[in-house]
Amino acid sequence: MPLGGIRLLTTSSTAAHADLLKEHESQNGQRQSKPRVIFSGIQPTGIPHLGNYLGALSNWVKLQNTASPSDELLFSIVGWHALTLPQDPQKLREARMDILAVLLAIGIDPDKAVVFHQDHNPNHTELAWIFNCITPMGKLRRMTTWKSRLATSRNMGEEDAVDVDEGGLNLGLFAYPVLQAADILAYRATHVPVGDDQTQHLELCRVIADQFNRNFKGMERLFPLPIQLNTPSKRILSLRDPTSKMSKSAPDTSSRILLTDPPSTIANKIRSAVTDSIPGITYDPVNRPGTANLLTILAACNYDNEDVQETAGRYVGKNHGALKKDLTEAVVELLKGPREKFEKLRTETGYLEQIAQAGAEKARRRSEATMVEVRKRVGLV
Amino acid sequence: MPLGGIRLLTTSSTAAHADLLKEHESQNGQRQSKPRVIFSGIQPTGIPHLGNYLGALSNWVKLQNTASPSDELLFSIVGWHALTLPQDPQKLREARMDILAVLLAIGIDPDKAVVFHQDHNPNHTELAWIFNCITPMGKLRRMTTWKSRLATSRNMGEEDAVDVDEGGLNLGLFAYPVLQAADILAYRATHVPVGDDQTQHLELCRVIADQFNRNFKGMERLFPLPIQLNTPSKRILSLRDPTSKMSKSAPDTSSRILLTDPPSTIANKIRSAVTDSIPGITYDPVNRPGTANLLTILAACNYDNEDVQETAGRYVGKNHGALKKDLTEAVVELLKGPREKFEKLRTETGYLEQIAQAGAEKARRRSEATMVEVRKRVGLV
Repeated sequence: MPLGGIRLLTTSSTAAHADLLKEHESQNGQRQSKPRVIFSGIQPTGIPHLGNYLGALSNWVKLQNTASPSDELLFSIVGWHALTLPQDPQKLREARMDILAVLLAIGIDPDKAVVFHQDHNPNHTELAWIFNCITPMGKLRRMTTWKSRLATSRNMGEEDAVDVDEGGLNLGLFAYPVLQAADILAYRATHVPVGDDQTQHLELCRVIADQFNRNFKGMERLFPLPIQLNTPSKRILSLRDPTSKMSKSAPDTSSRILLTDPPSTIANKIRSAVTDSIPGITYDPVNRPGTANLLTILAACNYDNEDVQETAGRYVGKNHGALKKDLTEAVVELLKGPREKFEKLRTETGYLEQIAQAGAEKARRRSEATMVEVRKRVGLV
Repeated sequence: MPLGGIRLLTTSSTAAHADLLKEHESQNGQRQSKPRVIFSGIQPTGIPHLGNYLGALSNWVKLQNTASPSDELLFSIVGWHALTLPQDPQKLREARMDILAVLLAIGIDPDKAVVFHQDHNPNHTELAWIFNCITPMGKLRRMTTWKSRLATSRNMGEEDAVDVDEGGLNLGLFAYPVLQAADILAYRATHVPVGDDQTQHLELCRVIADQFNRNFKGMERLFPLPIQLNTPSKRILSLRDPTSKMSKSAPDTSSRILLTDPPSTIANKIRSAVTDSIPGITYDPVNRPGTANLLTILAACNYDNEDVQETAGRYVGKNHGALKKDLTEAVVELLKGPREKFEKLRTETGYLEQIAQAGAEKARRRSEATMVEVRKRVGLV
C-alpha cells in the first residue's frame, strides 16, 4: 500500500509515536521563528483520489497559504520512485502531466512553492549514491515497507518476513528510502509533511543526515535533521470495503472518488457506497465503519476541522439516503473547482511543460548549492 | 583486494571462464569491422603501482594506439566507487588529480580517448537508479566481491559468507556493481578491458542491459551486451610476499613499486625483494614464486610479450644479484618517462582541470544521448 499510490503522503489516524507527534504538534501550533524548508513528494501513478486529497494534498495547499514569507516549500513529483514497481511507460508519461495539473488545480502556486519533477534534477540520484555509501544494509532491512514487501512477495505474514527469500525483488525497492533521504536533504529541508507510515523512513533520513554530518565535518553541520510535519489526519476509507483505506490500486474503481470524477460519477459511487442496515445515523467507526466514513468525508468537505460527532449530530433521525444526498452535494462542490481547473490545464501541455521546467530550474539551483558543499566535504572536487 | 585499488582493472591469469575467454580472444585477435566503444575505469585511491601498470594501464595505452579511427575510447576515474570504502577527503581530492596526471603521463591522449571523472557526469547515478529498479537483489547477493566482503567483515571463510550478518556493511558495497553497469552502458560500450575478477560484474552488466532491452523495447535494442576485452595478463606479485598480488593497500610499502618512485627507491625495493636461497635463476612460479615474479616483471619491461621462459634462459648460470640489477635498470627505464611527465603535469593543476572539464563535457554529451532514449523508454519525459 505505501508503495502503491502516494507513497510519501498517506496519513493515518493511529498515533504510534506519541512523543514525536507531540513535538510536531507544538511545531505546527506556533509560528516558527526560524525559516522552514518544507519538502514533500507525490508519485505519478494515477489521478489522486479523495483520500489523497483530504489526507495530504489539501494540507500542502494549507501549508503553502499559511507559510511565512521566509519559508521555502518544495513539492516534487517523484517519478524515480514510481519505477520501483513495473510501470507502463505511456501511462507513466501521462500520469506525470496529470499530477502536475492536479497540483496546480488544487491551488499549489508555482510562485509560492517550487513544483518540479524529481527526475529533472539529477542531484537527487547523485546524493543518493553518496548516502548509499554511509547507509548500513541493516537499517534498510528493518524498514517495515521492505518487510511487508517481502511478506507480500511470498504471501506470508509479516512476522516471518525476515526469513523470506528476497532474491526476486529489485534493488530499487530496498534502496528507495535512501533516495527519499536524498530527495529531502538535497534541499536541506527541515520539515516534511508526511503520514505516519513514513515515520520510519524519516527517522532513517535523520540517521543518514547525522551520519554525514559526523563523517564529513565542515565549518558547520551541513544537514538539518528534518522533522515530520503532522497535519490533521483524515483517514478516508474505501467506499466498497470500509475496513481498508481508499486506495488507488483497489480493483473496484467505485471504491474511490477521483479528483477528476464528474458529478454523475461521484453521485453513483456514493449511492453504491457500502454502509449498514442499522436505522438512523450515528458515528461509530468500529461497528458502523461505512457510515462513519461517509460522515468523516462530509465533515472534511463542509466544515474543515469540524468534529465528526458534530456532523453526525445533524443527522439524528435522518437516514442513509439523506446523508448520501448531502455528501454527494458536498463532494461535488468540493471538487468542482479543482476538476474544472484540471480539465483546462491538462490540455495546456505547453504551459505545464513550462511550469515543470521553471520548477526544475529552481530546484536544481537550490540543490546544487547543497551538492557543491557535499562534493567538497567528501573529497570529490 | 578487488575493492581496494583498481577495482575495474586487476587482471589474473586464471581462466575461469574458458568459453567466454575464447570468444573474447577471437574478438581481440582480429580487427572489428563494427566500431567499438571501449570503456574502463580506475579508482582514485593512490598512485598506481607496477602491477596496475603492467596488468591494466599499459593495455589502455595499447588499445588507444591500436584502435581504429571509428572506435571510441572512454577512460573514467571512478570517484563514486571509491566512496564505498571510507576515504580521507583531502587524500581523495589529491588522488583524483594524481590519477588524471598518471593517465596522461603514461600516454593516454585526450584527443584520442575521453578521459574524465565519473563524478562529473550525473548521468551515471541517474542510470544506476533506473537499473536498480530492474536488478534483482539475488543477483547482487551472488557477487563474489560481496561475498568476500561479507566474509572479511566477520573474518570467516567464504563458504559461510551467505549466513554472515551483513547489517553493518553499507549499501554502496552491495549496489556498486549496478553503478558499474551504468558506467559502462551510459556510453553503450561494447568492449570493457578488465581483469578476470570483473568477469562476474560484466556478466551482471549484460544481464541488466538485456533486461532493460526486454522491458523497454523501442525501434531497436538500446543497449549492446558488452564483452570483456581480455588483454595479455601480467599478474605481478608483492615484492615482500610473492604469494599475493602486488597491492595498493598492503601495509609494507616496499612490497610495491609506484609509478612515481624515483630510481633510488626502485633500487631499494628490488634489492629487498623476497626471493629464495636456491642457487641460480629458473622460472618456477610454484616453488620459486619470488624469483618467478622478478622474471615476469623483467620480461614485461624489456621485451613486451616475450615468453618469460626466454627471459629466464638468459640468466642460466647467473645469480639473484645479476637479475635484480638488470631488473632495477629495466624498471627505472620503463618508468622514467611516465615519472618525469607525471611530475611536470602534477604541478599544472590548471591544465589538469581543463583536461578534466573537457573530458567531462565530451562524456556528458555522449551519455546524454543514451539518457534521452532511456528516459523516453521508461516513461520519464
